[in-house]
Amino acid sequence: MATVNKNYDKLQGAYMFGEVAKRMKDFVEKNPGMEIFRLGIGDTTQPLTPTVIKGLKEKVKKLGSIKTYTGYGHPQGDIRLRTALAEFYKKRKIDLALEEIFISDGAKSDSGNIASIFGLDSIVAIADPVYPVYLDSNVIAGRTGEFKNGKYEGIVYMSCNEENGFVPALPKSKADLIYICSPNNPTGSVATHKQLKAFVDYALKNKSVIIFDACYVQYISDKSLPKSIYEIEGAKKCAIEINSFSKWSGFTGVRLGWTVVPMDLVVEDAPEGKLNNLWNRRQSTMFNGASNISTEGGLAVLSESGFKESKKLIAYYMDNAKKIKQSLAALGFKVFGGENAPYIWLKAPKNLTSWKFFDKLLKEAHVVVTPGSLFGREGEGYVRLSTFADKRDVKKAMESIKKNLKI
Amino acid sequence: MATVNKNYDKLQGAYMFGEVAKRMKDFVEKNPGMEIFRLGIGDTTQPLTPTVIKGLKEKVKKLGSIKTYTGYGHPQGDIRLRTALAEFYKKRKIDLALEEIFISDGAKSDSGNIASIFGLDSIVAIADPVYPVYLDSNVIAGRTGEFKNGKYEGIVYMSCNEENGFVPALPKSKADLIYICSPNNPTGSVATHKQLKAFVDYALKNKSVIIFDACYVQYISDKSLPKSIYEIEGAKKCAIEINSFSKWSGFTGVRLGWTVVPMDLVVEDAPEGKLNNLWNRRQSTMFNGASNISTEGGLAVLSESGFKESKKLIAYYMDNAKKIKQSLAALGFKVFGGENAPYIWLKAPKNLTSWKFFDKLLKEAHVVVTPGSLFGREGEGYVRLSTFADKRDVKKAMESIKKNLKI
Repeated sequence: MATVNKNYDKLQGAYMFGEVAKRMKDFVEKNPGMEIFRLGIGDTTQPLTPTVIKGLKEKVKKLGSIKTYTGYGHPQGDIRLRTALAEFYKKRKIDLALEEIFISDGAKSDSGNIASIFGLDSIVAIADPVYPVYLDSNVIAGRTGEFKNGKYEGIVYMSCNEENGFVPALPKSKADLIYICSPNNPTGSVATHKQLKAFVDYALKNKSVIIFDACYVQYISDKSLPKSIYEIEGAKKCAIEINSFSKWSGFTGVRLGWTVVPMDLVVEDAPEGKLNNLWNRRQSTMFNGASNISTEGGLAVLSESGFKESKKLIAYYMDNAKKIKQSLAALGFKVFGGENAPYIWLKAPKNLTSWKFFDKLLKEAHVVVTPGSLFGREGEGYVRLSTFADKRDVKKAMESIKKNLKI
Repeated sequence: MATVNKNYDKLQGAYMFGEVAKRMKDFVEKNPGMEIFRLGIGDTTQPLTPTVIKGLKEKVKKLGSIKTYTGYGHPQGDIRLRTALAEFYKKRKIDLALEEIFISDGAKSDSGNIASIFGLDSIVAIADPVYPVYLDSNVIAGRTGEFKNGKYEGIVYMSCNEENGFVPALPKSKADLIYICSPNNPTGSVATHKQLKAFVDYALKNKSVIIFDACYVQYISDKSLPKSIYEIEGAKKCAIEINSFSKWSGFTGVRLGWTVVPMDLVVEDAPEGKLNNLWNRRQSTMFNGASNISTEGGLAVLSESGFKESKKLIAYYMDNAKKIKQSLAALGFKVFGGENAPYIWLKAPKNLTSWKFFDKLLKEAHVVVTPGSLFGREGEGYVRLSTFADKRDVKKAMESIKKNLKI
């Protein structure tokens, strides 16, 4: 008799965006023809840039000819792309060997699968609120107990709130795997060099491993803020970094990301290189590489012209961020994030819950956001606004909130 | 202190193709300029067909325009592709609902990840020899004991040998998750309707789940042989089917596959729809969909012209199979498979081991194959020849074997 993995039953409801989509759909059906402004899901809306399109087209053409056709690639990913990424890091004075870089189909897969190389007895620390994949993947793996009073037993939660500027403080109790997302999804906050150093020092002292999600680092314009965990001394000994082309190059549908597992990374019971070797084994056993077409797109992004074009894309979304932030602040809202990140973290007025404020914004202003409570208990009372929208929609959304929202 | 997942240490050596690649590289370095004939890895060599190229190009163009750009897709995969796949199954009188089909980046990921939805106490049965992903993913998950005398403790091995025509007999002891690959990689054998029915009956009786890898079914030309497990009555109650565009449409580098988890599928401790729901949760939590470009390629494959072109690709490789089989049989070798499958299973002469015969073929005839022992203990004494080669290379390889191999 086959049995099911009962850890799935511990998970809370369906995946977060399901309920948002459902309420939006219900509203649209009840109000046919009504214009809706979608600032909910962090999904890019602006087209791929000319250099990327050119790279993709050329690869497709090559796949149609016997002389240039290619099948399976290198298990760790195209060597040209890994070389380009190593150069990308070198600009920030970070030296990585090619075998430390693993190309993937995106940060979600890597974030979800990375814990497979660690023991089930490793204690997990996560920020609260945060992107739910880190937590859910560990629930599925069996690293948690039941969900009680808004928290999973066995998880060390690192609160992010107004008092600490939404950047997590060090774990209050022993933690072995520490997930950090900076710039943070959903709060849009960014950890400083000093704040990250505290985590690296903690990890080195406690033989913990930091899993650093750097998906939004290209949105950092403040030159004093770190764009990679490896800018912190000692981080190569204690940190894995996950990154993606999705949000800064419009690859949400194209699918391409990468993960860095340094050779120097050590844990108490395994020698140098061991974790790199395990991730290599995990990926070569259970993954067959990113699409070779997407790979060529990534190479185009990292070219001189491609990189410049991506900067323009980033500027476009950050212009949205500025407009949203200014408009909402002018209406008296408490608004966070959106300065070095593509997310705005908005405090609900009059102590409304996240869902109550979500419904109000949808029904009165026809603006879709994401309830903060979906990202963790500490997200209650907030909503997340995504700036990955068309600027005309952003303008209309802000006008609609100003005109129609009964505050 | 973080710990590592010690199950990885149970795995045998590096991923199988590593040593093959190493020996080939050593040989090439010692014999510069020597022509090598690669019949080792099952990697396609013929270009994507015109209809597929057209589909891919059109999608790339669309991604470059604001009006037609798309980001994240539906969590289960593009509805048009799932509809096309449902129609594809309908041709074989199999009715599937769209929510029973999950699009992925390929069969390797799905084969490796599918066991995540089952309990760790479920006992795994696998054919021997077989594609190593089924076994390795379960070793990593912790469903096995140590590796002793060529076998993992806790695994039920289903021997495939000359006596049973390389089609596994039913598990000799209780098994809960039964992996079947038909046409089989590496032996090229295909289970008959009657043989699969025995497995379905076993699974229904014992509340087991069959994980059916159908990646090579398009190579079946014998109309009496089943191309889907769902051709067997009752299979929807007990079987998951994994499939891919890789081998019959040249998508090994493009990456696209699908998995069917029927609503009717039940296990003792969970109601109808539960396993479908769990796989949905696994994929929506830890995977962000196949590339939207690859998806468009898949749609093109399933179009009328695309399907016809894929048939020609299949015929090309099967022509290689015929040539290899005839040439080797004429030399007195015992040759199996290659009639409804793209793999040839060749018995080593004079009781040579797989590796000894591999070395002999490489050094004397400059032909690269895959040692059968890499696929399991029962594969010892055989080698696998892949027909995914250029026909000129196949011709030269056979001439070289005839002329140079000292049998």
